[in-house]
Amino acid sequence: MSERKARVKVGVVGATGYTGAELVRLLSSHPRVELTMLVSRTESGKSLAEVLPHLGGIDLPPLSTLDMERLASECEVVFLAGETGFAMEHAPVLLKTGVPEFAFPGYPAGSEKKILPSWSEKKILQVIDLSADFRLRDPALFQEWYGMPHRAPELLREALYGLPELTPPDAYRYARLIANPGCYPTASALALAPLLSADLVDSECIVIDAKSGVSGAGRSRVSVEYLFTELDENFKPYAVERHRHTPEIEQTLSGIAHQTVRVRFTPHLVPMRRGILCTTYARLRQPVAISDLHALYTTFYGDQPFVWVRPLGDFPATRDVYGSNRCDIGLTIDARTQMAVVISAIDNLVKGAAGQAIQNFNLLMGWEPTLGLPMAGIAP
Amino acid sequence: MSERKARVKVGVVGATGYTGAELVRLLSSHPRVELTMLVSRTESGKSLAEVLPHLGGIDLPPLSTLDMERLASECEVVFLAGETGFAMEHAPVLLKTGVPEFAFPGYPAGSEKKILPSWSEKKILQVIDLSADFRLRDPALFQEWYGMPHRAPELLREALYGLPELTPPDAYRYARLIANPGCYPTASALALAPLLSADLVDSECIVIDAKSGVSGAGRSRVSVEYLFTELDENFKPYAVERHRHTPEIEQTLSGIAHQTVRVRFTPHLVPMRRGILCTTYARLRQPVAISDLHALYTTFYGDQPFVWVRPLGDFPATRDVYGSNRCDIGLTIDARTQMAVVISAIDNLVKGAAGQAIQNFNLLMGWEPTLGLPMAGIAP
Amino acid sequence: MSERKARVKVGVVGATGYTGAELVRLLSSHPRVELTMLVSRTESGKSLAEVLPHLGGIDLPPLSTLDMERLASECEVVFLAGETGFAMEHAPVLLKTGVPEFAFPGYPAGSEKKILPSWSEKKILQVIDLSADFRLRDPALFQEWYGMPHRAPELLREALYGLPELTPPDAYRYARLIANPGCYPTASALALAPLLSADLVDSECIVIDAKSGVSGAGRSRVSVEYLFTELDENFKPYAVERHRHTPEIEQTLSGIAHQTVRVRFTPHLVPMRRGILCTTYARLRQPVAISDLHALYTTFYGDQPFVWVRPLGDFPATRDVYGSNRCDIGLTIDARTQMAVVISAIDNLVKGAAGQAIQNFNLLMGWEPTLGLPMAGIAP
Amino acid sequence: MSERKARVKVGVVGATGYTGAELVRLLSSHPRVELTMLVSRTESGKSLAEVLPHLGGIDLPPLSTLDMERLASECEVVFLAGETGFAMEHAPVLLKTGVPEFAFPGYPAGSEKKILPSWSEKKILQVIDLSADFRLRDPALFQEWYGMPHRAPELLREALYGLPELTPPDAYRYARLIANPGCYPTASALALAPLLSADLVDSECIVIDAKSGVSGAGRSRVSVEYLFTELDENFKPYAVERHRHTPEIEQTLSGIAHQTVRVRFTPHLVPMRRGILCTTYARLRQPVAISDLHALYTTFYGDQPFVWVRPLGDFPATRDVYGSNRCDIGLTIDARTQMAVVISAIDNLVKGAAGQAIQNFNLLMGWEPTLGLPMAGIAP
Repeated sequence: MSERKARVKVGVVGATGYTGAELVRLLSSHPRVELTMLVSRTESGKSLAEVLPHLGGIDLPPLSTLDMERLASECEVVFLAGETGFAMEHAPVLLKTGVPEFAFPGYPAGSEKKILPSWSEKKILQVIDLSADFRLRDPALFQEWYGMPHRAPELLREALYGLPELTPPDAYRYARLIANPGCYPTASALALAPLLSADLVDSECIVIDAKSGVSGAGRSRVSVEYLFTELDENFKPYAVERHRHTPEIEQTLSGIAHQTVRVRFTPHLVPMRRGILCTTYARLRQPVAISDLHALYTTFYGDQPFVWVRPLGDFPATRDVYGSNRCDIGLTIDARTQMAVVISAIDNLVKGAAGQAIQNFNLLMGWEPTLGLPMAGIAP
Repeated sequence: MSERKARVKVGVVGATGYTGAELVRLLSSHPRVELTMLVSRTESGKSLAEVLPHLGGIDLPPLSTLDMERLASECEVVFLAGETGFAMEHAPVLLKTGVPEFAFPGYPAGSEKKILPSWSEKKILQVIDLSADFRLRDPALFQEWYGMPHRAPELLREALYGLPELTPPDAYRYARLIANPGCYPTASALALAPLLSADLVDSECIVIDAKSGVSGAGRSRVSVEYLFTELDENFKPYAVERHRHTPEIEQTLSGIAHQTVRVRFTPHLVPMRRGILCTTYARLRQPVAISDLHALYTTFYGDQPFVWVRPLGDFPATRDVYGSNRCDIGLTIDARTQMAVVISAIDNLVKGAAGQAIQNFNLLMGWEPTLGLPMAGIAP
Repeated sequence: MSERKARVKVGVVGATGYTGAELVRLLSSHPRVELTMLVSRTESGKSLAEVLPHLGGIDLPPLSTLDMERLASECEVVFLAGETGFAMEHAPVLLKTGVPEFAFPGYPAGSEKKILPSWSEKKILQVIDLSADFRLRDPALFQEWYGMPHRAPELLREALYGLPELTPPDAYRYARLIANPGCYPTASALALAPLLSADLVDSECIVIDAKSGVSGAGRSRVSVEYLFTELDENFKPYAVERHRHTPEIEQTLSGIAHQTVRVRFTPHLVPMRRGILCTTYARLRQPVAISDLHALYTTFYGDQPFVWVRPLGDFPATRDVYGSNRCDIGLTIDARTQMAVVISAIDNLVKGAAGQAIQNFNLLMGWEPTLGLPMAGIAP
Repeated sequence: MSERKARVKVGVVGATGYTGAELVRLLSSHPRVELTMLVSRTESGKSLAEVLPHLGGIDLPPLSTLDMERLASECEVVFLAGETGFAMEHAPVLLKTGVPEFAFPGYPAGSEKKILPSWSEKKILQVIDLSADFRLRDPALFQEWYGMPHRAPELLREALYGLPELTPPDAYRYARLIANPGCYPTASALALAPLLSADLVDSECIVIDAKSGVSGAGRSRVSVEYLFTELDENFKPYAVERHRHTPEIEQTLSGIAHQTVRVRFTPHLVPMRRGILCTTYARLRQPVAISDLHALYTTFYGDQPFVWVRPLGDFPATRDVYGSNRCDIGLTIDARTQMAVVISAIDNLVKGAAGQAIQNFNLLMGWEPTLGLPMAGIAP
């Protein structure tokens, strides 16, 4: 269907947040997107460039209030970039305005997926959610880590967790709702998936030492601790005892490993705006040649346009992927402790959020995954 | 001619410098460019991504040595991004390999410009130089400020100083050689041109207080003072007594003012990678209403896609234009001292170098000036 | 009096702000100070190190509520580091608890200053205010620039504006209340005072282009625009149309010039924590030899321990004075525009706030001005 | 002996490096130090403030060439802050000029340490080396990791590895030569020592994920990769496959654990000037209550002035110890993977280099360890 259309009508909810604005920036130059609606509950009525001058000079619709009917009528795909809890309240409403639920038996349950009865007649509204609302399969796990009951558990089962390099391409065919992965889970899972898929390491005590630029905290996190003066020239751990991305990482990796994976995940804040670097450590079950490990990774990601497994001896820096949708990976084996050390780098707002959402969108539309996405990073 | 061609063959000399690499990044996604040759005298044989991993994942020719014959045969347009002195040595050689000199009577002398005799038959090689070599009209001035004699003074007369918003569009029609303006002169001239064209201020004692990110220094400026540890958390003036961009600024502004303009230009280094902000001060000859001044600016830049005159009361920050080819301008009048205060912001590597060079290239080709150039900045 | 005492009892009100905490840090190692009371209205009951862990490991009284009687009874000198409006409300109360008002005829009226009648018997409470409340002599000017009526205009007349290098040493003898200068006014006045005292420049159109690290905004300025993500890698002007430090700068310089001084003052924000650099421009009335200008400055600041007039050709960077109480000054003459260019650098939290307050305190006590104050900066 | 003297004559070799300059800064305000000689092979003849303006305003001897005889005659203690290889060439010469070798039977061999025969008559020259030359006990290990043979293996046995919190106080009594620990080994060992001394964890696969500000690279490391433009807004691992501090960390921890300790050590570069944060992971042999672990740490460091074990739930940031000689430690237990996670933070130039050297110097002199050392950090 979409194949035949030149441009798809797209709406972004939460357009003035860091993730939302990055979505708008990238979508505004996507060759097959028409941005029809930008929602900001706090700044409606203004132009986006008034609020965020870096988006000056591009043609955009004005910011509007959250009007579900307008969204449903003016958009074919809606990106939700709200706070935790927003999507599980609003996605069900949006999806109901589209094709009837029975037509989408969901993923992964539906082996019996039917051809949609009214495919070319009825409007389909698809939703890509960038929050955490639909990432965890298990509502109990959601409640445990996010401290609130899940309000749309039935959609939790249906939602497709879209980490394109690890999600079966087929799964996108009939998806209505995509849960876009978290930034840390993206970088962590891409670093460790090949190791775990090949069952090379002790899966019960994997260490993920993660470092992130500050934009991950978002534009609405306004408190003393996020002031420039508090974070500049400062490096610090946070959420050491418990971070919400832990179960998401374990869910993805356990799926790949076909066994329980337990990770010790420690995030840190780096005095920079963008970029995540994950240094991961896993104990090898038995000695592995470094060249074999490298071959495993290059094969695993062989045809993935956005993963660059660096040559042996070469490790990524966050600046290499600044502004890019790539995930760069470097690896070694520490012979002395028999550990595999795998390091991944992404731009948290691109591959870790808006870019990956567009990659998911491209796959949902049946297009090339690279469409409208930056491959090169920006340096210096 | 070029109009009919889908893609123009382009070479970049100095591809591993900051400006050269930015050219490659932008040109690699330009819809009408085929990058055919990347020259690096120090890294030839390697791939560009090996040297600059942020350019990973894109299809590029390998780095090659400086071979003038190959350049002339494989490229239609060559961007020179070398150090001072490089272009005045090599541009003459390149230009000779193209159409005969007499066909290009040069700018601005040639009011009698003839239709080129062999326009559609003979290959034309055009050169866009990003260094300072062809910016100053007067070879004596070049010698005074750059401390070396000019080696191609005849080309100095011919070269087109391409600051698109201030250069007559016609001038691009038969240009073979474009002198791409300096970063400070671009930001300074765009800030002050309307004021001076309207003869509103004392032209003999204009203050330009300029602040730049560090990338302006280039990748080959390897010395203690440019180490991270020396510049981080540090703000400092440099070249206070004398900076080479002074005569270039005065040349442009004097041309616009039709009288001698004298500027006091003080550059400073800001602990960030990119961005220039110029705060300019000029004494009003007589009282002017702020609304009139604002109207003057919006009219002056009315149809320029890359200049955004901000609303009254709003002033640009460098982050607003980070990664963009825009120049944003804010202004006010200080009633107490009768001074106009005009503030401009650009990305020194985009509008201040590579982006503007591509804007010039687009104009040279007769295309839309915005082709392949980013309008939105990147934030946060 | 104080000369005979080993240690003076000192209180700090507003101890958890950036300026207050810097006062505590410096005072805690001052050889003649006993910190007896630290007031924080929001964090009372806690230890300061709980709130500000960088102050761990030093012996300090716990944070207490604002109790004027306790302050008066437990302290001999109180530093007020509150927001605008706080000091003019509380300083009068504190001062009343000390020696009767008549005993302090104030500065500068009192040429007839009497020996205090009860000097050695009655406790004297002295106040050093770091806010703007007592800096402007004229209550009308205060109202015009700060948008509120002054509530203690009689103290406004009495208060000593303590910029030690420009304030007559005698003035400290009987001062009860010191108005500690603003950060920009300190850097600006020190840069321009010699020029104006020698009547060398046009005093009506002086340009002060100022750049500051972000800590000047304070710890309680919690809003989106001060987030790390908004300011990092960003340079921007602010308060371009009107900044409250303008009349303070003019008051000081007019006093020195014995004529009206008008400045065009434009502050900017630098992505760093500390440091102010002022680049000042003044048009020379007639040609001056650069060596004479330099001699003027070195003579003017000859015996001032905290001003370093740099050698000709050498200009200060903010990092040179990071953590130091020095003000470094570099200068040149731009022969082409007949302008004197004088550049000063200070640490806004030390010489621009807490350090200068302690310098004032030392002078008030009749001690060496350098006591307990860092001379060296911290680098890298 | 030293007890009776007011001030000890101290020389610093390598005074213009980052570590050397920090030594000078701290020693210049040390109450019992007289700086008699500052050596810089590249800048001799100049004043230190000429080279490093942040050290302006303090009284210092001029920079002199490396003259061993002058050093021996004008200093009682010499700090060596040279590159690897410098100290093992020059320390033997310096030590020979002092008391005869036999008088110092060395540590730890000499349980039979004799009273020095000529204690009060003969001048003793003591050396504190801040390089890696005397840190590893085993010359073979030195050769393996530093790629050069050790030229003073006999001193290697004698040298006291001075990590004050882990070195027996007695060991300082007759030491002539102190090997000041590396920055990473200091932070790592202080984080892990209590865990290993109590034999709570698997000692064979400890992970130390370390992050450092850039000043650790030193002022003489002038290459493209250390330019501001390359490191700003960038986070990256380095020396992933092999870092020279690995055997030093293992030597210290093995000594404490009385068994072989193997660590996986991965350093990273943070875009800031100073500060190291080590996040360490060790697998518990059996479950331990978090309160017991915390009690273990607070007891272990009970009377150490420079170690602050943070309350449970509180973790250090590098800014907390910026400019301070403290090491702050926070810890937790990850119940899910049965790992102890211990995080330490130091200022790499203070506790990680110059400050710790002065702490060692104080102990060598028999003084309070805190003399002349900053306890509070500097923020913001």
